[in-house]
Amino acid sequence: MASIFSKIALGEIPSHKVAEDEHYLAFLDINPLVMGHVLVIPKKEVDYIFDLDDETYIGLQLFAKKVALSIKKAIICKRVGVVVMGLEVPHAHIHLVPMNAMRDLDFTLPKLSPSAEELAATAKKIALEFIP
Amino acid sequence: MASIFSKIALGEIPSHKVAEDEHYLAFLDINPLVMGHVLVIPKKEVDYIFDLDDETYIGLQLFAKKVALSIKKAIICKRVGVVVMGLEVPHAHIHLVPMNAMRDLDFTLPKLSPSAEELAATAKKIALEFIP
Repeated sequence: MASIFSKIALGEIPSHKVAEDEHYLAFLDINPLVMGHVLVIPKKEVDYIFDLDDETYIGLQLFAKKVALSIKKAIICKRVGVVVMGLEVPHAHIHLVPMNAMRDLDFTLPKLSPSAEELAATAKKIALEFIP
Repeated sequence: MASIFSKIALGEIPSHKVAEDEHYLAFLDINPLVMGHVLVIPKKEVDYIFDLDDETYIGLQLFAKKVALSIKKAIICKRVGVVVMGLEVPHAHIHLVPMNAMRDLDFTLPKLSPSAEELAATAKKIALEFIP
């Protein structure tokens, strides 16, 4: 069965996209740690990031770098933090989180539940800064 | 002034190395979240990971992938998690953490303080699985 992220990549489930190319997609986490929390995925459905072939893995990391640079421009933050846990959804994904303090990367804290309008506005701000 | 990680890369500060090449180094975090928690750095001293040039960044990510695969073989775990925070030491570094549950990646929990002997044995186990 296709993962929820494959369905998002195919457009079967809507998402707030911030960047996309033939092989990769970046979209907002709808329950973010902080506003501007983005998920980056390969469109190819592989569960574990370190099982990706080197070419797809490098492409994913370079795509994530470009997305991180665009988040840094769009959202006021000291750094963009990176987390890959891989125990939630069985489709490799990188969390990119704008950080001002260590606690901004604390996945044990309650997540935010922004409105669709807030998400759309944030996605647009980041997308405008994205340089392919 | 050289960062603590540059001093480790130069051998001025001892570390429990698990893998090394001309440009990258992987060594144990001496206060790990769980045993087998590794730090991967470029020897080049750049503060923020997304400021690395693409070549160094790709090299670092590929080196980290090889280290993660060796951790997975050496340490019993479901996944090797990845975290880059970048607010601690001003020298880009990737945390690789063997995970069995989400809480294994919780940086707010108290860290472990293993003995030098325990660290040396863990480093050796991982190093034996490393394929350059």
